[in-house]
Amino acid sequence: MEGWIAEAPTRLNAESAEAARHRQTQLTKPPGALGRLEDFAIRLAAMQGSTTPSVERVRIVVFAADHGVTVERVSAFPQSVTVEMVRNFARGGAAINVLARELGAELEVVDVGTAADMGALEGVITQRAAFGTANFANEAAMTNAQLQAALAAGRHAAERAVANRAQLFIGGEMGIGNTTAATAIACGLLNKDPASIAGPGTGLNAEGVRRKVEVLQRALALHQTDRADDYEVLRCLGGFEIVALVGAYIACAQRAIPVLVDGFIATVAALAAVRLAPGCNEWFFYGHVSGEPGHRVILRALDAQPIVDLGMRLGEGSGAAVAVPILRMACALHNSMATFAQAAVSQKS
Amino acid sequence: MEGWIAEAPTRLNAESAEAARHRQTQLTKPPGALGRLEDFAIRLAAMQGSTTPSVERVRIVVFAADHGVTVERVSAFPQSVTVEMVRNFARGGAAINVLARELGAELEVVDVGTAADMGALEGVITQRAAFGTANFANEAAMTNAQLQAALAAGRHAAERAVANRAQLFIGGEMGIGNTTAATAIACGLLNKDPASIAGPGTGLNAEGVRRKVEVLQRALALHQTDRADDYEVLRCLGGFEIVALVGAYIACAQRAIPVLVDGFIATVAALAAVRLAPGCNEWFFYGHVSGEPGHRVILRALDAQPIVDLGMRLGEGSGAAVAVPILRMACALHNSMATFAQAAVSQKS
Repeated sequence: MEGWIAEAPTRLNAESAEAARHRQTQLTKPPGALGRLEDFAIRLAAMQGSTTPSVERVRIVVFAADHGVTVERVSAFPQSVTVEMVRNFARGGAAINVLARELGAELEVVDVGTAADMGALEGVITQRAAFGTANFANEAAMTNAQLQAALAAGRHAAERAVANRAQLFIGGEMGIGNTTAATAIACGLLNKDPASIAGPGTGLNAEGVRRKVEVLQRALALHQTDRADDYEVLRCLGGFEIVALVGAYIACAQRAIPVLVDGFIATVAALAAVRLAPGCNEWFFYGHVSGEPGHRVILRALDAQPIVDLGMRLGEGSGAAVAVPILRMACALHNSMATFAQAAVSQKS
Repeated sequence: MEGWIAEAPTRLNAESAEAARHRQTQLTKPPGALGRLEDFAIRLAAMQGSTTPSVERVRIVVFAADHGVTVERVSAFPQSVTVEMVRNFARGGAAINVLARELGAELEVVDVGTAADMGALEGVITQRAAFGTANFANEAAMTNAQLQAALAAGRHAAERAVANRAQLFIGGEMGIGNTTAATAIACGLLNKDPASIAGPGTGLNAEGVRRKVEVLQRALALHQTDRADDYEVLRCLGGFEIVALVGAYIACAQRAIPVLVDGFIATVAALAAVRLAPGCNEWFFYGHVSGEPGHRVILRALDAQPIVDLGMRLGEGSGAAVAVPILRMACALHNSMATFAQAAVSQKS
């Protein structure tokens, strides 16, 4: 384990939280009537140490990588789709491109370990840990050096977000086979049977899900002795893009950038981040509940309440992106509504 | 009943729906991976008869009125707050003003029956059915002429929305005491006991809710014989702003403007609209689930699936406004994502 992971997350600003909580009681509405929007504004005020929280400047980073375990036929799509989709990101045609444009958000793609060399693509940073992971059904997914490289790729993304004065960080992922890797990590961290978490991913049928569960059971049995150590869980069962998300989330919490976690795979990364760096969860919002059934299990383990539930299951950061306007509206209401005194409106009798 | 209510809603365009459904299968994502966003785009395509649905031009109309039943102490706030809040709307300080600005939406306030003459206020249209309803615990809330005037106020708002080429209509309400009136209407239409629907509204305590239930039971017993007729339910138990919402919703369905229904009170108006004008429900989206407990009961009766669930309970159209960006993103994804063919991405194996 490298030293930087152990650095403590930034502490929230309790005074700003208290001031925000007080302001909410003064706005021209019944107390509590904005529901969770009030909590969002108060939490953002505490994170940003500000009386006027804002998430206008959003940074979306999609990490892409390939997975050796795809040879076990655990995905409905061929492995080539990972790099095809990276090219689609570069050309602006994927869902996350559309959403980033709608939000006015910066979008960056980091190739942290795809299986094919794509050459230089505009908007794609190459910070490759390897050309895909090894098949974790037979051996450890990565070496320790590769694990550290992927964590560092995440940290570097967080550092670029700081340099760009991002007020909110969204990590996305692209990697055919990565619901299998995420399920393996979740089972390793939570000591669960894969049958209780594994789902169709991009669209496996029932037989495909059964095969996925068998592969996962084999992998978990193989790496049994390594599962006491959370790093070893990531190293043996991880994917590079998932590990990069872990590094990015921890680095964001250290650098005081609020994080909006995406779906199943991103939430597994958040779970790993909380295990490696306790306290960083205070910096996380959870954007949505995925249609991937295991997502609810992981959210429960984190005691997380996602913002929307729309049956999305696309990854790329798309579910988090859809939740951004709700955080923005929470800030706008907090910052711009009139108070009872300003508007000369009577309070509760 | 005036003739216009009986005019049929515009029929949805089945060809546009089919074309939109096909396009969703061609976009670079696993089939179904955008979850409910796919349905939203397909439904909007069918409503707008367009291959590129859009809800950029949003029209928000807040109807305000007062309620005779407030003398029974059924609200946590004094009746004067209705007009105080109308002034707050006119000055731009209320939640719905902030949200309308965030959305770039047009906001109009219609005084359809407040208890006090406020004189001319910028952005407020006066189309008054009366200076507040009568106390429906003792007598019918309004005359038939007042009922027709309030329905017409809603229709006129829909006509102005057409004139402004609105692509989405949100109806909001402001009226101290109007959760009591909405609960009475819901009980009348669904033949329910008020104890199963009544809630705290703007913030009644348990004793206040008990008082509200008693008042409602008294009113429902008094108007028992009139409850076979949905118009009579509205006339005897209604509020002017609720009736105006009913008229607006029906007129929007007739004029082919998609409606985004707000919270508890607006959803009761949607229920009444569906009763008076069967088929208009096809034009309705439901923005959110309110923190007001009875909202879920009414949504179930309508078989409605709201877009977000954030514990909001403010009214004014605010819960619907918060859901607008999700519809917009559904349209943007539908219209702007690359297809598999355009992006040269492999399809499911």
